[in-house]
Amino acid sequence: MTVTDPKGFVAAGIACGIKPSGNPDLSLVATDGGRPVNAAAVFTQNKSTAAPVVVTREHLAASNGKAAAVVLNSGNANAATGASGKADAQRMCELVAHQLGCKPDEVLVCSTGLIGIPLPMDPIEGGVGRLVQSLRPDGGNNAAQAIMTTDTVRKEVSVDGGGFTVGGMAKGAAMLAPNMATMLAVLTTDADASPETLTRLLQAGVRDSFNVMTVDGCQSTNDTVIILANGSAGAVDEEKLADAIFQACDSLARQMVGDAEGATKVVEVHVVGAASDDEAAAGARQIAESQLCKCSWYGQDPYWGRLVAELGVAGIEFDPDTVSVTYGDITVCRNGITSMHDATALQDVMAKREITITCDLGLGEGSAYVLTNDLTHAYVDENMGTS
Amino acid sequence: MTVTDPKGFVAAGIACGIKPSGNPDLSLVATDGGRPVNAAAVFTQNKSTAAPVVVTREHLAASNGKAAAVVLNSGNANAATGASGKADAQRMCELVAHQLGCKPDEVLVCSTGLIGIPLPMDPIEGGVGRLVQSLRPDGGNNAAQAIMTTDTVRKEVSVDGGGFTVGGMAKGAAMLAPNMATMLAVLTTDADASPETLTRLLQAGVRDSFNVMTVDGCQSTNDTVIILANGSAGAVDEEKLADAIFQACDSLARQMVGDAEGATKVVEVHVVGAASDDEAAAGARQIAESQLCKCSWYGQDPYWGRLVAELGVAGIEFDPDTVSVTYGDITVCRNGITSMHDATALQDVMAKREITITCDLGLGEGSAYVLTNDLTHAYVDENMGTS
Repeated sequence: MTVTDPKGFVAAGIACGIKPSGNPDLSLVATDGGRPVNAAAVFTQNKSTAAPVVVTREHLAASNGKAAAVVLNSGNANAATGASGKADAQRMCELVAHQLGCKPDEVLVCSTGLIGIPLPMDPIEGGVGRLVQSLRPDGGNNAAQAIMTTDTVRKEVSVDGGGFTVGGMAKGAAMLAPNMATMLAVLTTDADASPETLTRLLQAGVRDSFNVMTVDGCQSTNDTVIILANGSAGAVDEEKLADAIFQACDSLARQMVGDAEGATKVVEVHVVGAASDDEAAAGARQIAESQLCKCSWYGQDPYWGRLVAELGVAGIEFDPDTVSVTYGDITVCRNGITSMHDATALQDVMAKREITITCDLGLGEGSAYVLTNDLTHAYVDENMGTS
Repeated sequence: MTVTDPKGFVAAGIACGIKPSGNPDLSLVATDGGRPVNAAAVFTQNKSTAAPVVVTREHLAASNGKAAAVVLNSGNANAATGASGKADAQRMCELVAHQLGCKPDEVLVCSTGLIGIPLPMDPIEGGVGRLVQSLRPDGGNNAAQAIMTTDTVRKEVSVDGGGFTVGGMAKGAAMLAPNMATMLAVLTTDADASPETLTRLLQAGVRDSFNVMTVDGCQSTNDTVIILANGSAGAVDEEKLADAIFQACDSLARQMVGDAEGATKVVEVHVVGAASDDEAAAGARQIAESQLCKCSWYGQDPYWGRLVAELGVAGIEFDPDTVSVTYGDITVCRNGITSMHDATALQDVMAKREITITCDLGLGEGSAYVLTNDLTHAYVDENMGTS
C-alpha cells in the first residue's frame, strides 16, 4: 500500500537535519536507474507560489513532461524566500540529478513546513548522497514518513487497476482547502500514458478528491500532486486508468481529512435540491468552512439552525421555508422548521466518527458534497505557534 | 453612557423566564409616554431572516418610519420558526403597544439566542406588563443587561454631539461578521431628523463600524440596528449627527469585538498599497477570517508567512515579491522575504491586547481595514454545544 507498489519504482526517506526534532525530513521517489519517464503535475492556485512549485513547473516544461525522480523535504516550505529560495530548490534538483545520473530538469521538487524561513541547505547538501544510496523497491514507507509535518500517520495508497497499479503517498494536515492547500502527493504507476493524458486524468482526479475537501479554508503556497508513469505494464484502457488515479487521490484525501490537525470527526456535507451543482457546492462549502458549524460537530451538537443560517449567506438561491436538514438518516428540520425526531437515535448519529449531513434546499436538481472535519481544542493548540 | 442618556427616553430590563438560567431576558426602550417618533433600521443580509426582522421591517413600512418602542428578548432568536414565529413576534409588539398605549406597528421587535426553537410565549405574555411598569429614565443599564447572551459585559455608549446626544446599547459576541451578523443595537437621540435622513446616516454609520468587524465570518439571521429620534433637542447639523451616529456605532462595534466569544485580542488588519480599496478590503477580510491567522494571534506568534499565504488566495491583485508585513511598527517582511527586526520588541507587540497589522501590497493606492480578534480555546468551548 505505498508509492513503490507499481513495478520499477524505488524510494527512500532519511533524517538529514532540517527538522530540529531529528525526525525524517528528506524523501525521494525515483524510477529504477534514474530513467526519465512520463510525468504530470497539478499545483496550488495560491499566488504566493513557493519556490519548489516554480522550479517543478519549469522542469516539467523544459523536459517536455519527463521526470526521473521527485525529491521532497519537510520541516521548511521554502516559500516566501525570494530569489535565493528558488536557487535552493534548483540546487536540490541538481544534487539529486548528479547522484542519479539524470538531468536536473528531470528532477521535480516539493517542500512543506514553515513559510518565510530560508531553507537550510547544509543538511540537504550533506544528505542527498545518503538519500540516493537508501533507495529501495520497498522504500515507500520511509519516503512517506519523511514528508510528514503535523500528520500523525503516514498516508499511502495502492490501487490495483487490473494489469497495472497506481501507488501513492501524501502529506497534509492543516490548511486543507479547496484547490489543494497544504498537501503534497506523489503517485506512481506502471501504466503507459502520455504526459498530456496523465495531466488530464490527474486534473480530473484531483478535482473530484482533494478539491472537495476543506479543513479551514486555507490554501497553501506549496501544494503539488505529481504522477510518474514508467509504462512497464504497457498501454491500458484510459477509463480504467482514470478510475485508478481517482481512487488513489480519493483514498489519500480521506486519509488527510481524517488526520487533519486535531480533528475528531470526518463530516460529509451534502447539499441537494439546489438551483445548480455549482450553487450546491457553494452552499456545502459555506457550511464546511463555518467555525460555528465545525465547533458544533466537535461537541456532537445537532444544531441545524447554524446550517440554515450559513445557507442564508452562501450567496446562492435559498428559501428558508423549503429547506430540510438531515443528520445521517434523521431529519431534524423540514420546510425550515423543527421536525419531530428520535433524539436518542440522533445523539448516536452525532457521536460517530463519520457524520453525513444532507441539506435539501427544495429548489432544483443541483447537488454537491464537501468533505471536512470539526474544529477542536487540539486544532487551536497546533496552530497557536510555530514552535 | 447608555441608551437612555438622550432626554425623553425610558428603558427597562427584566427576567421573564425565557432563559432557564433566570437571567434577565426581556428588554424595552421606549419614548416618554409611548409617543411615536422618527425611526430607522438596518437589517441582516442573511436570507434566513428571523421573524422579528420581518415584523420590524413591516412595522416601519406601515408606520412611515415612526416608532414608540423597541422590545427585545434574549435566550431565543425566534428564527427558523415559520409562520408561528412571525405570529409570536407580532404578538410581542401587540402586548407592548397595549401597555404603552400606542399602535402595534409603532413597536419594533428584536430577538437573539438559539435558532430553530419556538419562542416560549407564556413568559413573555406574563412579563410585558411588569416590563412596561419598570420603564425608567435611568433604566438603560437594565435594558442593556437583558439583551446579553454570551456577552460577558454590557455594551453601552453615549456621544455628546454638542447640543444633542446619541445613546445606545448593543449585544454581540460570536457570529460577528461583515454585514452585521449576530448583533442587536438600539440607538436613541434627541436630535430631530426625518426617517429618510436617519436611514441614510445609520446605513453610513453601520457600514464604517459594525461592517468592518468580523469574528468568524458567520452572519446571523437576526441582526438589527435601530435608531429612534425624538427631536426634543431640535434640528441639528446633519454632518454632526452623522458623526455622532458613527461614533456611537464604532464604540459599540469595538466593545463587541473585544468581548467576542473567547477573544483575548482585538486585531486591526490594515491592507494598504492595493490595486483598489475594494481589493484592500477583500485582502484584509481574508486574513481576518483565517482560522490559521486567528490561532497565531492567540499564541502571540508573529508568523507573517500565513498572512502572505492568505493574501495569495484572496482573489485580488497580488505580487509576493512586493509585499511587506508590519506588526505594530515593526516590519518583519519586506519585498516578500524576511526582514531583520528586533525580536524582543516584536514579542512585546504581540503580547499586547490590541495588535495592528499592516500589509503593504506595494501595488497601488487602495487601503482598508478590518477589526477582528483571535481564535481561542474558549471560542471552541462556547460553540461546542448549545446547552
